[in-house]
Amino acid sequence: MTAERIRYGMVGGGRGAFIGAVHRIAARLDDRYQLVAGALSSKPELAKASAADLHIAEDRAYGSFEEMIAAEKQRPDGIQAIVIVTPNHMHFPVAKAALEAGLNVICDKPVTRTLEEALELEQLVKSSGSFFGLTHNYSGYPLVRFARELVEQGKLGKIRVVQVEYPQEWLTEAADADNKQASWRTDPARSGLAGCLGDIGTHAYQLARFITQLPLDAVSADLASFVEGRPVDDNVHVLLRFEGGAKGMLWSSQVAPGCENGLRIRVFGEKASIEWAQETPNELWFGELNQPRQRFTRRADWLGAAASGVRTPGGHPEGYLEGFANIYKDIADILVARQQGETHQLTKLVPGIETGVEGMKFIQAVLNSSKADSAWTKL
Amino acid sequence: MTAERIRYGMVGGGRGAFIGAVHRIAARLDDRYQLVAGALSSKPELAKASAADLHIAEDRAYGSFEEMIAAEKQRPDGIQAIVIVTPNHMHFPVAKAALEAGLNVICDKPVTRTLEEALELEQLVKSSGSFFGLTHNYSGYPLVRFARELVEQGKLGKIRVVQVEYPQEWLTEAADADNKQASWRTDPARSGLAGCLGDIGTHAYQLARFITQLPLDAVSADLASFVEGRPVDDNVHVLLRFEGGAKGMLWSSQVAPGCENGLRIRVFGEKASIEWAQETPNELWFGELNQPRQRFTRRADWLGAAASGVRTPGGHPEGYLEGFANIYKDIADILVARQQGETHQLTKLVPGIETGVEGMKFIQAVLNSSKADSAWTKL
Amino acid sequence: MTAERIRYGMVGGGRGAFIGAVHRIAARLDDRYQLVAGALSSKPELAKASAADLHIAEDRAYGSFEEMIAAEKQRPDGIQAIVIVTPNHMHFPVAKAALEAGLNVICDKPVTRTLEEALELEQLVKSSGSFFGLTHNYSGYPLVRFARELVEQGKLGKIRVVQVEYPQEWLTEAADADNKQASWRTDPARSGLAGCLGDIGTHAYQLARFITQLPLDAVSADLASFVEGRPVDDNVHVLLRFEGGAKGMLWSSQVAPGCENGLRIRVFGEKASIEWAQETPNELWFGELNQPRQRFTRRADWLGAAASGVRTPGGHPEGYLEGFANIYKDIADILVARQQGETHQLTKLVPGIETGVEGMKFIQAVLNSSKADSAWTKL
Amino acid sequence: MTAERIRYGMVGGGRGAFIGAVHRIAARLDDRYQLVAGALSSKPELAKASAADLHIAEDRAYGSFEEMIAAEKQRPDGIQAIVIVTPNHMHFPVAKAALEAGLNVICDKPVTRTLEEALELEQLVKSSGSFFGLTHNYSGYPLVRFARELVEQGKLGKIRVVQVEYPQEWLTEAADADNKQASWRTDPARSGLAGCLGDIGTHAYQLARFITQLPLDAVSADLASFVEGRPVDDNVHVLLRFEGGAKGMLWSSQVAPGCENGLRIRVFGEKASIEWAQETPNELWFGELNQPRQRFTRRADWLGAAASGVRTPGGHPEGYLEGFANIYKDIADILVARQQGETHQLTKLVPGIETGVEGMKFIQAVLNSSKADSAWTKL
Repeated sequence: MTAERIRYGMVGGGRGAFIGAVHRIAARLDDRYQLVAGALSSKPELAKASAADLHIAEDRAYGSFEEMIAAEKQRPDGIQAIVIVTPNHMHFPVAKAALEAGLNVICDKPVTRTLEEALELEQLVKSSGSFFGLTHNYSGYPLVRFARELVEQGKLGKIRVVQVEYPQEWLTEAADADNKQASWRTDPARSGLAGCLGDIGTHAYQLARFITQLPLDAVSADLASFVEGRPVDDNVHVLLRFEGGAKGMLWSSQVAPGCENGLRIRVFGEKASIEWAQETPNELWFGELNQPRQRFTRRADWLGAAASGVRTPGGHPEGYLEGFANIYKDIADILVARQQGETHQLTKLVPGIETGVEGMKFIQAVLNSSKADSAWTKL
Repeated sequence: MTAERIRYGMVGGGRGAFIGAVHRIAARLDDRYQLVAGALSSKPELAKASAADLHIAEDRAYGSFEEMIAAEKQRPDGIQAIVIVTPNHMHFPVAKAALEAGLNVICDKPVTRTLEEALELEQLVKSSGSFFGLTHNYSGYPLVRFARELVEQGKLGKIRVVQVEYPQEWLTEAADADNKQASWRTDPARSGLAGCLGDIGTHAYQLARFITQLPLDAVSADLASFVEGRPVDDNVHVLLRFEGGAKGMLWSSQVAPGCENGLRIRVFGEKASIEWAQETPNELWFGELNQPRQRFTRRADWLGAAASGVRTPGGHPEGYLEGFANIYKDIADILVARQQGETHQLTKLVPGIETGVEGMKFIQAVLNSSKADSAWTKL
Repeated sequence: MTAERIRYGMVGGGRGAFIGAVHRIAARLDDRYQLVAGALSSKPELAKASAADLHIAEDRAYGSFEEMIAAEKQRPDGIQAIVIVTPNHMHFPVAKAALEAGLNVICDKPVTRTLEEALELEQLVKSSGSFFGLTHNYSGYPLVRFARELVEQGKLGKIRVVQVEYPQEWLTEAADADNKQASWRTDPARSGLAGCLGDIGTHAYQLARFITQLPLDAVSADLASFVEGRPVDDNVHVLLRFEGGAKGMLWSSQVAPGCENGLRIRVFGEKASIEWAQETPNELWFGELNQPRQRFTRRADWLGAAASGVRTPGGHPEGYLEGFANIYKDIADILVARQQGETHQLTKLVPGIETGVEGMKFIQAVLNSSKADSAWTKL
Repeated sequence: MTAERIRYGMVGGGRGAFIGAVHRIAARLDDRYQLVAGALSSKPELAKASAADLHIAEDRAYGSFEEMIAAEKQRPDGIQAIVIVTPNHMHFPVAKAALEAGLNVICDKPVTRTLEEALELEQLVKSSGSFFGLTHNYSGYPLVRFARELVEQGKLGKIRVVQVEYPQEWLTEAADADNKQASWRTDPARSGLAGCLGDIGTHAYQLARFITQLPLDAVSADLASFVEGRPVDDNVHVLLRFEGGAKGMLWSSQVAPGCENGLRIRVFGEKASIEWAQETPNELWFGELNQPRQRFTRRADWLGAAASGVRTPGGHPEGYLEGFANIYKDIADILVARQQGETHQLTKLVPGIETGVEGMKFIQAVLNSSKADSAWTKL
């Protein structure tokens, strides 16, 4: 028998937004969710108009997230989960209210605007009976999970060097005032003190952490704001030291002409290396010492547990939306298992509040190190 | 205001099927369809069990397509379209019945098992008031459409040479008897006289036809069945002559180790060339004479009309499912326009019955030429 | 002890020529040859001026090849070999005279202008005691030889399909009258009846023949001359049937914008495939059925006999000149062995008169088939 | 009229050496040099045997460099230049003696073992009338020079970010005692205090310096020795700050399985970026903001002055040896011009003693910073 679809309400993601639509596709792709309610904008009028676009019933198109939570609690068919796709500064209050109302939460990253908020949220999640998932979507790509499997299986030997980067070009010039995506991302009040660092640097860090499973010990960072008048960083250079002795580099940039979403990671161990790039996500390079490199594709033949995230045969490319959808699909499996009092094995693969807290600690340490002229700073 | 979702019923695509699930994802991705009914297997028991998997209401889980059509006609909320994802030999009877019942049809390719059936179906489509769409999904990729735009705009100059290919490895060895996908594809009774030719050779042909818009004049073909005992071809070599003087080559193979879904096209004109490969669908190479090659990505900045098929920014890869979904999304737009008595501009980009007939003519000509020791054979 | 350098005289290759300079670099690279004499142009004045450019002593700068052969025979330190780098129509008379004078010959391809000449030359080579080498340079690339080794070792299993191509853009437009390279190549009197076919189609054929070692049985060809007024073909489409059942396609073109020297071969067997492209000559792809593809580089670790043609470690790219030089280096080894009455093991890897004759038979069969509306034509 | 070939003597590079043979090929490729003398090993017996291998006359096969310099000065046809290809610690004494004898010097990199030696050598070069060239060969690649041209022409706008790296795998494990190349490179007495840093890190630095022409202001470095017992670094992580505000990262490693000679640079300016990798040296990527990326090949059509280093048309790959040979060819032109009292325009493109001094300053600053827990250290 097929499990019921999970009923969810969305906060943020109305007309003019970007990431909300991505979440909705991700939720819809495998038919495990139903969008039944929404507080899609901080402007009530816009929120309701946006809801109509999305086939949300009129009486469940709310003007605020508080209203939505209160009303849905009264319904027998009320929402089971809230999806948060607002600018960063709203993640915390919405998540807090949802958790206090006993709802599960799926939240876009970074988890909050500050480390303090993240730590408080961590307590809330632990004391609640709810599930909290953070959509660090890049760890939803099957070959990223396969890379993690290779590391776990010892195929690389002890890890020595981690090189990760995420360059983009889209903020190379000062953005127009009417660029909604650019404006809140470069506004500390809404995005936090980190610019490029919080927006994509955290993705790079999470990817390295996810694949290697190595805790990061300390950073030496050099942030820059190349565009005049920009109040946050737009280029991030960080040296990394991991527990156990591995070292690395992290680079993220939003002033890199010629780059679209160049997230790329290389991990080198005593025996072999892996290499993966987000723009060609259907191949993973495995380089064993003194052997020809091997190009693994997204095939069930070798993927192991990561095969659960594959919908089409190797050679039929899957991409960003499918990787994102894997996070949603896994959360659906996890929620179904929780209803039956079980812990689903995929739980460890889905980023949660700990990942969120680690991300904020990373941001904080990088900001501190950069202010201290790149002094090594513990996380 | 948002248009209502289109209600559809599926024929084929039950448990153990492959392409049915792809169609359902494609229909779901942009939230323009609702799967409300199904005759998902030729075995009634299996059909009904499969329907339950898909959240289809019990009273709309039918044991046969005839039953479904008859029952749905009686409902005020009956289906508006039928999606056909059966083995090839069932395409014709289902499509015929659907059209006769006034339903719109979305059909997997090849359109029928024989040219005769295709021609009869063409008459049926013309005399009906219904829409018939054929899911030659590769022409749904945004950069394939952009390639067509470049040709239309004269950026290549007059076309001289077309090289298209589609190698796969999956039938390199005789398939196990229990490989459902392999068994019907190599069975002339269910698949038609063409093996690899019908399964993927037609995709290659359609891609060339779609991008260049050149009518094919004649073929000189050499088919092979390399695997002992295989009753249909597994390797297809064809020389092409187009109307107007362009020449080309088409190769498709299912005995090509190392290849997954290597569909790739190159078109050379008097001024420039384009190159696109399905496994890296987010880049299109444009090679102007005596200039550095340019690598176009999937960006709205330059895509023109093809931009409608883009959901994420360049650098966030979209793939097979998104390309497939574009066909569905366009058909939804077309159906909405038809309800209002209009012809949507996307109509010309969505493969229909003419494409289906052309494909069957291509298959027939290739089979005939190969039997005649590769004599040039008109379409 | 080191063998003496081989003393050679060059015919053709004076000022304004292209391939002569390449031969001289190839001969010089490994310091196995000395250029001591030359008849570098059909114009005596130009011949002598060109010789001075090349540090050839004044008394060995000849006005014609006949003069050179006659004079050098009288010298105790006379030339041991003649290198022929003239336009095609002069290959035969020069080679004939050289062989009759007991000189070894190194000749650019194609071996002659006609099959008749090639067959006569074959007799001359056999009846002479001299060595005849044909610089089909692409078979000098170490990874091409490694590909041949893989085939010989049975790593691919029985070969089924061979796809080879060589597109260029440089004759996309009618050439200027003062383009020396273009003018003789499109002049049947100097180049032969084949245009693109003889210039680069033969390279593609030789590469396929060299790697697979399969004799070609028959061809079905469709030649085109897309540029108005061009007296020879500029685009070559050929279906191939090899002895033993393998089939293939060969495409060469000189009207392919965006292509520089796109020689590329793929060979598919029952177990695996190889793929190699001249523009990225330091990698060879090996694709075993149901395994990740492997990217072999130019490393002695696995190259076997092909390792002799490697001067730098993997990752330090070698290219066209080094591949060409390998032919020269091997011929030097062969000539030294012959002086000692031995047959060097590399002899089978260096193209000789048989390769030349096969190439002319291929050209003849393709021309005949194309005239006969692509009828299958035996070699 | 053609200039006489330059007569040179080599120090180091006897049997069992690696880079000496590369220098000899580079010198020979364009026929501008003659190897006439040698002190090819510190062991006189081996030196003389090695000379015989190389066609050096017996009376010019010397047992030591001092002997060679003294004897050659007495000859009317004595050497004009000395090529130094010894381990690092011998560069200084040989270069010093050569300069004092009025000879021109071509020296492998790094210039000396210590900064002090480099500074002393700089004074010697200035006070001598001799030419000193340093074979930082990677700046001999035509597309590297083209990259520099693009920067000079302002095509990138003001430079903001420089990412350069050079990973190799060959010292991933402790080397065998009998690996001659590995043993001296990991011995501080012969190689200097820097391991990977001096061997390849300096190549990466020089490449960045050559292309951008930006002086480096300060470094923050973290060196590692991952292989137990290794007395020098084998992994180099450096943050870079250039004069004028650009920032960057430099990574070099000799413990990176899967990497051969992965030298790669990316430079990002306000308007565009360039990307070049040594293993695919015949392509240069140019990425303008909001434009499709362009792939420049090695064609005279656009290369400007860099075209002088091109011997074959685009599409016929040239590699490591050709790039190396360009340094030699340019030095030949420079020496000829100097004989006529002129300064050749290529002088600025050939690395000299200033480049050598800068390299040693870079090494020193990186060593100091790493010892000071990555404190920013001025050069």
